[in-house]
Parts: sequence; structure tokens; C-alpha cells
Amino acid sequence: MTPEDRLQEAGLELPVPHVPVGSYRMARRVGHSLWVSGHGAFSDGVPMHVGRLGDTMTTAQGAAAARDVMLQLLATVRADVGDLSRTMPTKIVVLVNSSPDFDEQHLVANGATDVLIDLFGDEHGRPARTAMGVAALPLGFAVEIEGLFELREAAGNPAGHIRE
Amino acid sequence: MTPEDRLQEAGLELPVPHVPVGSYRMARRVGHSLWVSGHGAFSDGVPMHVGRLGDTMTTAQGAAAARDVMLQLLATVRADVGDLSRTMPTKIVVLVNSSPDFDEQHLVANGATDVLIDLFGDEHGRPARTAMGVAALPLGFAVEIEGLFELREAAGNPAGHIRE
Amino acid sequence: MTPEDRLQEAGLELPVPHVPVGSYRMARRVGHSLWVSGHGAFSDGVPMHVGRLGDTMTTAQGAAAARDVMLQLLATVRADVGDLSRTMPTKIVVLVNSSPDFDEQHLVANGATDVLIDLFGDEHGRPARTAMGVAALPLGFAVEIEGLFELREAAGNPAGHIRE
Repeated sequence: MTPEDRLQEAGLELPVPHVPVGSYRMARRVGHSLWVSGHGAFSDGVPMHVGRLGDTMTTAQGAAAARDVMLQLLATVRADVGDLSRTMPTKIVVLVNSSPDFDEQHLVANGATDVLIDLFGDEHGRPARTAMGVAALPLGFAVEIEGLFELREAAGNPAGHIRE
Repeated sequence: MTPEDRLQEAGLELPVPHVPVGSYRMARRVGHSLWVSGHGAFSDGVPMHVGRLGDTMTTAQGAAAARDVMLQLLATVRADVGDLSRTMPTKIVVLVNSSPDFDEQHLVANGATDVLIDLFGDEHGRPARTAMGVAALPLGFAVEIEGLFELREAAGNPAGHIRE
Repeated sequence: MTPEDRLQEAGLELPVPHVPVGSYRMARRVGHSLWVSGHGAFSDGVPMHVGRLGDTMTTAQGAAAARDVMLQLLATVRADVGDLSRTMPTKIVVLVNSSPDFDEQHLVANGATDVLIDLFGDEHGRPARTAMGVAALPLGFAVEIEGLFELREAAGNPAGHIRE
């Protein structure tokens, strides 16, 4: 099963890809790497999950936010590559808007990596990850995620040059 | 027009490349990638743009700081590569020293990516980008920027192996 | 002398590699790159160096923490690659749990890069680096470090494809 199959099976639809909120692009492809900009989640153009962990949001709410941000980020990946099945998540960075006493950024970040594993499979979809608590985020987002994805070669060469 | 042409046309000079403030190097080249360390801006060896957004600095002041930091970072790139025309900005990370209530890190970061687009052109110079609000920065800098640049092959092969 | 020789000479042992604290992997290898997740230091499974710079910890204590976190990270690299001698540190990101008035993140980060230079040598072991002050970290860690390492080809080709 491919990530696209799993999305369909789960009845999940990726959100509409969002446009940049400044003078950058949502993702840049260089060689086999797709560098994905920091993302928040939007609904009808309005920021979702605005708040701060350890203050206005619980860890569970943060994990739900991280999941939505990851789906938003995957919408960018699909828009760039055409098909999630041609990609693998190499690494993500999860930025958690945190009060100084909040120390469960790793549990918030699971909301993002759990959905990668659900869609891409346990071996293929489990990335390297860094989670940290930041002082503030653009537009007041509770969670922002940056990603690096690897592109497979082509349909006729399913493993591409990915070596693991 | 190359980035070097545009600098000259604008009468802009890059600052003197700065030395590391610790046991690291300003940039490391591996294959076609130039990994550029976190940079602040200096003038005659003294840190510029010390302060915090949402506290002692306005968004416009932050964007001006981001522009100066990017020029400082480009001085490192040129010192390493010899000519900005042989490079492309793949991705930058803009760290904005922020009070918890400041949520315009993306507008601050535009100061950095606007100058990339001015110099490298809209298609070539528009990178992937992550902007975040951090609690504090080395030497009290308001803005710190990390970069990843792609190197073109050589003059006789202007597009190099950059694929987009 | 290889990094493994230098460890032995110094009578240093790397700690036991730690398991992820969530749904990710400690490192992911793609091509010649080893992407290493954000690490803290553990002793017998218990987080070490919990605290905040500018609050409960001094700069010297922070640098000692950064050193231990780097050794923990190197344990992951060795567990993945088999031998540190086959790797080179390309870039690290040092996240320092900071109160807003602490501005010596670069001095804390030296604890991490000093040990890289000690083990890998001044030319080979000196990476690009970004240091920043974050609002909070998972499990209350004072320091978290993310890394990118380059893999050499093989014993018969000691320089691998690393170009500098």
C-alpha cells in the first residue's frame, strides 16, 4: 500500500496547499531532496491551532495541532512532487510554542510523526526528528513544522537511490 | 545579470566576513552543498542589531536587521565560494529573538529573503524558509540566520546539476 | 589517529545509545548523509543536565551538558555507522534552554564542538554550527543537539567523496 492508498482507505483528504506568508517558497527541490519550509495549518485561509503549550493548550491539543500541520505540509509535498508515494520523510523539525515550564514537546511532536508512520509505513515513514520549545511563532501558531523529504527516482525504479 | 552584477548596480558592498565566535567554522562544503552556520551581523567587530522583537525593536527594525544579517551571511558564502553567481540559496532558517507576544517573525524574515530575491532573481533567489521566535540569541542578537546554499558546477556548465 | 583511537587514548567511553522518546528514529541515513535527531543526555535511562541557562545553570555547566549530549549523539552515530572513523561532522544545531537574558549560547555550544575537534581533529572535526536560546526543551533538558554527519565511502577509499 502506498501513502496515497492509505489516505484513501482512511477517508482522509489533505488540505488545500497554502501559499507562503512572505518572500519564500513552500518547498525547494534540489537533486533528490525536497526542502519544505516551516508550515502552520490553515483552514479557509485562517490560521488553525493558535495558542501556546503550557498556557492555553494541553499536550493532547498540541499533538492534534501537530497532526494537522503535518497534513498541511504533506499537501505541499504532494503539490510539488505529484504523488506522495514517490517520497520518503527524511527528517522533520517540530517547533512547539511553549511556556518556559512546558517540557512535553516530544509528545506534541508525536502527532506529526504518527501520521507519517500511518501513511508511509513504520520503516519508510519513521523519520529523524527534532522537537523544541520556542518562545513564539508566526501568526501565533502553536506548532510549526519544517521537513526534508527524499524523492524516489521513478515508477520503474521503486527503491530509487534511497539507501538504508 | 548575476548577483555580483546586481550588487554592483545597487552600489552595495558586502560586509567584511566575520570569524566564528567559538569552535566551529562559518561554513562547511560537502559535495554541492554549502552549510552556513548561524550568523549575526557585525560592524567593525561589534554586534549590530542587539535587541528583542516585541520588546525593544519594531517589526521594521527586525526586518532591517534580517537584511544586514543576510548580507553578512552572503559575505561568508562569497569568501568560501569566490563568486555568489556560482550559488543558489536552497533554504534559510531565520531565528528571531522574540518576546512571547510577538507573532510577526515571518515579516522580520522577509528582510532576509527580499535581499536574496533582489540579488539572485525571483526564481533562483527565492528559497525555502523557516522563521521562528526564540527566547534568546548569542551576544543578544535580534536576528540570527542559518543557510544552505547549492553550488553550481562551473562556469562552462551554468546550470550545474541544480534541478528544479 | 582516528576518532576511535582518540577515544581510547583519552580513556573515554561513549554512553549507551539511547532509544527515541517518541515515534521517530535516532538517525536516518540517506545516501552519504546521516541525519541525527535532536538528542539529550541520559544516564541509566534518566535525563541528565535538566535545567535552564541564566536561571538554574551557569555557562560552564551548560558547556559540560553540551559535551555530554554530544557524546550521547556520537553513540548514536557509531551505533548506526559502526565506526566513527567513517564519518565527518558536517553541521550541528545546539539548542540551549535559556532565560530571556542569557546570551552566551555560543559558549555553551563550544562544549559540543570542542569534543568533536578533540576526536576528529581540527580540520575534519570542526563543523558548521548554529546555537540558539530556546524557551523550553523536552524532559526539561538544558541542551539538545541535532546533527548532520557525512559518511565516507569505505576503508579502501579513505577520503570517500567528501570534498573540501
